[in-house]
Amino acid sequence: MAWDTEGTRRRLKEAATAEFAAHGPDGTTMAAIAERAGINKERLYKYFGDKQALFETVLTDELTKLAASVSPPEGGLEDIGEFAGRTFDYHAAHPELARLLLWEGLAGGPVADEANRTAHYRRKALAYATAQREGVLDGDLDPAHLVFLIIGLAAWWICVPQLARMLTGADDHEPAEHARRRAFVVRAAERLALPPR
Amino acid sequence: MAWDTEGTRRRLKEAATAEFAAHGPDGTTMAAIAERAGINKERLYKYFGDKQALFETVLTDELTKLAASVSPPEGGLEDIGEFAGRTFDYHAAHPELARLLLWEGLAGGPVADEANRTAHYRRKALAYATAQREGVLDGDLDPAHLVFLIIGLAAWWICVPQLARMLTGADDHEPAEHARRRAFVVRAAERLALPPR
Repeated sequence: MAWDTEGTRRRLKEAATAEFAAHGPDGTTMAAIAERAGINKERLYKYFGDKQALFETVLTDELTKLAASVSPPEGGLEDIGEFAGRTFDYHAAHPELARLLLWEGLAGGPVADEANRTAHYRRKALAYATAQREGVLDGDLDPAHLVFLIIGLAAWWICVPQLARMLTGADDHEPAEHARRRAFVVRAAERLALPPR
Repeated sequence: MAWDTEGTRRRLKEAATAEFAAHGPDGTTMAAIAERAGINKERLYKYFGDKQALFETVLTDELTKLAASVSPPEGGLEDIGEFAGRTFDYHAAHPELARLLLWEGLAGGPVADEANRTAHYRRKALAYATAQREGVLDGDLDPAHLVFLIIGLAAWWICVPQLARMLTGADDHEPAEHARRRAFVVRAAERLALPPR
């Protein structure tokens, strides 16, 4: 029987994503990842390199999934509220992504795939700036800062869930509260970005 | 010579704040804190209890300092932009607070001083709700969610500094960029909370 290489890689990456999201790179060992996947540790090193390389692979993959799943507003940036709402949905369904970003920031070390991510964010900021010039978005906020805040608006709930719970008296997995948070995210994005009606 | 108890406690707490902010509770040992302070580890346990208790003491103290330093807007919530700006200033000058909040959220364990913090946040949400009824703040956003987002608006920069850097091409300690971020925070808070002019 041939080795199921792709299946093995996938299982190792899933285990790494779960372990890194839960404990961060400093709190995770390659042995724990291999054990979780039920696969030999040497295979893990062979496929992905050392722990830092594996962490960067995992984070980059999760960011790629977000970008593929939540595409920019089809109708253009006048739909920024719904775009923020869909980004919020994604983070709520995949809390591991925001957690990986926090671990990366807290570690303060190398940034995974920095050149590509920087280019991605600059393109976003440029699209916002263009929409501002065209009057689709209001022009009084710096476009790069606005992109940064729209991401925060969608992800902040996952980053400090204890704060959201103390403020609202409810958790995000309670459907009524989740719906209220989503409606807030949509409307807040509109207030931040759209011209006054 | 009498023991300088207050001075010892203060040195231990400063060391604990630095270690916990840098490495989180799971990445910190009581021995490392005692060593950083240059004080016997047994004293650390005697004064503050175990590691979880010490972490909660440190986080509660830092939150108290924030509340004492950044008082609610004197002129009322119509000054919410400047209030958000001052909160941003505080987090930029004391990045350890936002980091401690993130560690607490990532650990997902007990919440430090939960009853008092919950009461504090509920009072804030109530003040926002009152200001909305009185027309000082616009009324279309849930007041508790708005409080949550204003905190995020001020702290998000510290939480994912790598993201802010990729988007803006600059770090917060560059004075021109810091000033731009602050102006953005002030204006974004106004757009979120104030009635249209």
